[in-house]
Amino acid sequence: MDETFQQLASLDRLLHEPARLAIMTALMACENADFLFLQRLTGLSSGNLSVQITRLEEAEMLSTSKRFVEKRPNTVISLTESGKTAIRSYWEKLESLKKSAEEFSRDSSE
Amino acid sequence: MDETFQQLASLDRLLHEPARLAIMTALMACENADFLFLQRLTGLSSGNLSVQITRLEEAEMLSTSKRFVEKRPNTVISLTESGKTAIRSYWEKLESLKKSAEEFSRDSSE
Repeated sequence: MDETFQQLASLDRLLHEPARLAIMTALMACENADFLFLQRLTGLSSGNLSVQITRLEEAEMLSTSKRFVEKRPNTVISLTESGKTAIRSYWEKLESLKKSAEEFSRDSSE
Repeated sequence: MDETFQQLASLDRLLHEPARLAIMTALMACENADFLFLQRLTGLSSGNLSVQITRLEEAEMLSTSKRFVEKRPNTVISLTESGKTAIRSYWEKLESLKKSAEEFSRDSSE
């Protein structure tokens, strides 16, 4: 039995959840970002962004560091090595599942 | 400001949720399927599959019809026209958001 749809049904929600997917994909694109820039990019509330960053940090997908910019605290967020691998793999997996679904479609209509 | 990541963060969970994504993508591939075949394809429990089908039917993404096969009840599930459009658009949107993220990445590294 083709496993494409089972794999879709069991996608890991850690990265699949929209807010976290946006954060991880933004960090994949920017290398690192401070909290306010990430908030503007994703459009998330600061509360939600903060919760999701903590969740992703606990899963060792990203790391944060605090610094001061003009005497104000500033948090810089970047992907860890395992985070980089995970978000790239996530997108590759999704692309490959979509292709498999299309092939399944062709096979079943032949 | 680039809207790619805002669009990722606000993806519609109706189709994005893994179990429903698997069901909708399977139906996109097979045109129609009976309950047991869909259960084997997606690997979902019959309870979960049943809940998600109801949810998708309420959202007019799919329709179900009952028939008898060898005197046993059999439910056939297929996408509605709006369901077909929605799942194709979902995959196109995801692909286009991924491309935009990659372009954002190139632009910001120049």
